[in-house]
Amino acid sequence: MERIIIDMDEVIADPMGEMIDWYKKKYDKDVDWDKMLVGSWLKGFPEEHQSLVMDRLKAPGFFRHLPVMEDAVEVLRELNDKYEVFIVSAAMEFPNSLKDKYDWLQEYFPFFSWRQIALCGSKDLVHGDYMIDDHVKNLKGFKGKPYIFTAAHNLEITGYDRINNWKEAANIFLK
Amino acid sequence: MERIIIDMDEVIADPMGEMIDWYKKKYDKDVDWDKMLVGSWLKGFPEEHQSLVMDRLKAPGFFRHLPVMEDAVEVLRELNDKYEVFIVSAAMEFPNSLKDKYDWLQEYFPFFSWRQIALCGSKDLVHGDYMIDDHVKNLKGFKGKPYIFTAAHNLEITGYDRINNWKEAANIFLK
Repeated sequence: MERIIIDMDEVIADPMGEMIDWYKKKYDKDVDWDKMLVGSWLKGFPEEHQSLVMDRLKAPGFFRHLPVMEDAVEVLRELNDKYEVFIVSAAMEFPNSLKDKYDWLQEYFPFFSWRQIALCGSKDLVHGDYMIDDHVKNLKGFKGKPYIFTAAHNLEITGYDRINNWKEAANIFLK
Repeated sequence: MERIIIDMDEVIADPMGEMIDWYKKKYDKDVDWDKMLVGSWLKGFPEEHQSLVMDRLKAPGFFRHLPVMEDAVEVLRELNDKYEVFIVSAAMEFPNSLKDKYDWLQEYFPFFSWRQIALCGSKDLVHGDYMIDDHVKNLKGFKGKPYIFTAAHNLEITGYDRINNWKEAANIFLK
């Protein structure tokens, strides 16, 4: 069975969308999309509020109640029958997120066992046949076939095959 | 730089020792060492208390205050200068342990950054040059050179090069 390594944030979970919704409600202001599109979506929030956004990101609970990316549940359920799937999140920078991420997966993706989950610092450590991730830093050292999953911050990245949404992933992996 | 993957429980942390000490104090009874030596140390506790031991293992806090294995801090500090060290623990079966393990490492091994920590379900996912682990299930699929770290439950295992303590590890890796 071939192994697919799938990221969480901006790939199956939507922390950026959740943070923007919260921000708009709280401050009645929009984010700066031009700045959001380069490197990190944190930069799209006004400078005076960036530490507040970071505090919220680091607090227990934030990663527990994130929206699920469209079609992710259905497609990952099918992938799980045909591939050895691992969910790998570089979560260690946010230690309060660890249990939240586990609980979130249990709620929305109960067909994955705990054996299929890894929360790490660096993805250099993992190996497999395919990796689906929104960050070049995770994809670039990967020995298998990397796919960049489209997110606001990576629209201008070239040099990787791109997956724009989970329907496209189904076309690639489940044909 | 060569990569060493180092386990936590029974290798740099001592949950078995901590559980036995607690058990002896609470029940004024010893564990059954003959049973402890086969497969899992949980079996060394009297049957009527095994679910209590398991509950304690699964509770928040247990993995936060474990004894450190002798010489582990000094030797790992030196290994960290000469190798790419990753601390990898198959912790996902015990989701309440995740933050505790991170905090424990921060306290006793502050020279490791969060980038060097991974908490996973299956170690099949990780790759490197050397692995030091007390469980055959973790070592057997490893593509690099595996070392079994001596623990009560693995004394009868053969077929692997053995490391009995961290002084021995220093002799192998830091000569």
